[in-house]
Amino acid sequence: MAAKAQKLVGNMLIAQSGGPTVVINQSLVGAVLEAKKRKEIKKIYGSLHGLKGILEENLVDLGKESKATLELVAQTPSSALGSVRKKPTPEDCRKVFQVLQKYNVRYFFYIGGNDSAETTHIINEEAIKEGYEFRCFHICKTIDNDLRENDHTPGFGSAAKFVAQAFMGDNLDNRALPGVKVNIIMGRHAGFLTAAAALARQYPDDGPHLIYLPERPFSMEQFVVDVKRVYADLGRCVIAVSEGIADEKGEAIASKFIKEVDSHGNVQLSGSGALGDVLAKEIKEKADISRVRADTFGYLQRSFVGVASTVDQKEARQAGAAAVQFATGGKFKSGSTAIKRKPGKNYKVWIERTELKNVAKETRHMPDNFIASSNNDVTKAFIEYVKPIVGPLPKMGRLKAIKVPKK
Amino acid sequence: MAAKAQKLVGNMLIAQSGGPTVVINQSLVGAVLEAKKRKEIKKIYGSLHGLKGILEENLVDLGKESKATLELVAQTPSSALGSVRKKPTPEDCRKVFQVLQKYNVRYFFYIGGNDSAETTHIINEEAIKEGYEFRCFHICKTIDNDLRENDHTPGFGSAAKFVAQAFMGDNLDNRALPGVKVNIIMGRHAGFLTAAAALARQYPDDGPHLIYLPERPFSMEQFVVDVKRVYADLGRCVIAVSEGIADEKGEAIASKFIKEVDSHGNVQLSGSGALGDVLAKEIKEKADISRVRADTFGYLQRSFVGVASTVDQKEARQAGAAAVQFATGGKFKSGSTAIKRKPGKNYKVWIERTELKNVAKETRHMPDNFIASSNNDVTKAFIEYVKPIVGPLPKMGRLKAIKVPKK
Repeated sequence: MAAKAQKLVGNMLIAQSGGPTVVINQSLVGAVLEAKKRKEIKKIYGSLHGLKGILEENLVDLGKESKATLELVAQTPSSALGSVRKKPTPEDCRKVFQVLQKYNVRYFFYIGGNDSAETTHIINEEAIKEGYEFRCFHICKTIDNDLRENDHTPGFGSAAKFVAQAFMGDNLDNRALPGVKVNIIMGRHAGFLTAAAALARQYPDDGPHLIYLPERPFSMEQFVVDVKRVYADLGRCVIAVSEGIADEKGEAIASKFIKEVDSHGNVQLSGSGALGDVLAKEIKEKADISRVRADTFGYLQRSFVGVASTVDQKEARQAGAAAVQFATGGKFKSGSTAIKRKPGKNYKVWIERTELKNVAKETRHMPDNFIASSNNDVTKAFIEYVKPIVGPLPKMGRLKAIKVPKK
Repeated sequence: MAAKAQKLVGNMLIAQSGGPTVVINQSLVGAVLEAKKRKEIKKIYGSLHGLKGILEENLVDLGKESKATLELVAQTPSSALGSVRKKPTPEDCRKVFQVLQKYNVRYFFYIGGNDSAETTHIINEEAIKEGYEFRCFHICKTIDNDLRENDHTPGFGSAAKFVAQAFMGDNLDNRALPGVKVNIIMGRHAGFLTAAAALARQYPDDGPHLIYLPERPFSMEQFVVDVKRVYADLGRCVIAVSEGIADEKGEAIASKFIKEVDSHGNVQLSGSGALGDVLAKEIKEKADISRVRADTFGYLQRSFVGVASTVDQKEARQAGAAAVQFATGGKFKSGSTAIKRKPGKNYKVWIERTELKNVAKETRHMPDNFIASSNNDVTKAFIEYVKPIVGPLPKMGRLKAIKVPKK
């Protein structure tokens, strides 16, 4: 009889980091339920507010949560364990590792974006240095969809669905009361979420009519030219703008123009309507159009209740479960979960383990073939890419509107 | 055999006016389907963009729309016939009446708020003056819920549901990443929609923690005191603010503070994030709290796809049908539809015909018993009032979060 490889026995700790998403608790619950099946995993700790909770030993016992509670939490937006924005120093990571040792944590899972992957990587390096037997995994998450190695990331599909449904309604609003409407979308360095506004189009003249992404330099002059052209053509114009648009030197338009308005220099880019107001003002003054409005979708995009993508929910759950499977499978000591996708028309995805360093730090941008050569729209390739991630959208009705001959 | 009263035979015209809502097409379709059953109604015209379409004789033949199209349009947010903001002069109303005569319109229906009721009233007076046999009805609509004679108005329930679900998610977002969050809600003179944010509360510490309504004078000093108190208590604070808040002299806070920033005097109150930014800045400076964010929900509140209240949809449809029933019933020549409600716990509503002048011009405000004596919250009476109009909301999960003893 061949001897079975000895399993690493100990406690588990899981935490959530960075911006919340609508499905981040699916990953949490996916990992916890999978861990409950593993004999080698004893206690299942959750840290409150990410690394902060570890540093302060502010832990909760997730093993004591009922299945019913966990399932309800899985359906609930925004990090149930709380989150944290603080980027830890290497010294913080060492301290975190010491706490993990103290609580005999042998399985560590950190749900987050590329910064969280970097944190996980540093903690793992510390464990290796100390010769501490340890399984250390990052679980992919971000509405920005900007993690390398991933075809797309949990959280993006639901945020994209919110953006699409918001634009569907806003396009109809603009059609009823024509004018120019600017909507500012989250995503500082990657335009995926802004681009998802294109899913709102069902009829040939539907907006968004213009889409501005951080991957292309933004020119205020060209913007005014573009808007004037659409307005002359349709008598209205709906525009999707990424909060991260920057000029050809890479300077954010938000900080550039808002600095001019506010002499204190206290520029707040997110959680503020300033960029939209700046762009609306420019159109009013330069394009001589009177009805110009701007909305900044803000935090609704990442936490709104009731508009989750079913595919996103499922994949987020799978990512959490997969991390525990990788950690207990005996093959890998560390890594991150990456969503991979079969090329072609039939949507087929699976989750692979990748090295932590592959997703840490740097972000992924929209590939060139997703951006129209006009620099103010997306391509069909992008629509085919994003459609199955968001899932079905409600069909909008339109009257045939057969004209009555004038008397 | 008693002779049947002779029915008024002729064409019908229907139009939509003012801000779009998620259910305004339910009223349109309710009226059209009801009209199709009436032999005395011949052609069913729709005017594009309200009175503007009548003045320009820009009409469509709604009798040629299929049932399938109409049903899909009913489910679709924002005025399918287009809307208009222009308040007509008495001269415009006379011209409108002349066009109606020219097309032998004997049944006129105008879906809108109190301004639209006023317009309908003037058109009807014109018909009376000219001795033109005419049925002239206003169909109630407004997300602001500020029509007199109505317990509540079509459009409000769905907008309130959007606001509630937005606050449910935003409260969770704020719980995950604590700080102060200010959300600006539509409703310039009536606070009903802002007040609906209170429906987001499911756990004792859930936000919104403060609610500011246009019915009570807003003091910036008291605002800072309120926020400091909540923040000291909970370590976070979610705030619902009506865009229409005004000081004790009735001057809108938005125009008051934004005037100071913009010397041009071109103050834009809606479709702008300025009020939220002003309030956030005040908290940052006066309450010494670093993480302060503001979102302005903007046009999403009235047109977002996929978050309709079922009750609201049903009642909007009924209001449209009821207007046609009143117009053809032989008892009334003009009027408006008003939603009435039986007092008490069991939700029971019906639609009554009321005089046009009863809903025209003036708006309805939140009654005193809906506003807490603190002036920064709503009462239980308001919650009981609004709950059945919005309908069931998703239940949010929360971990039991049993603390692990520190080692």
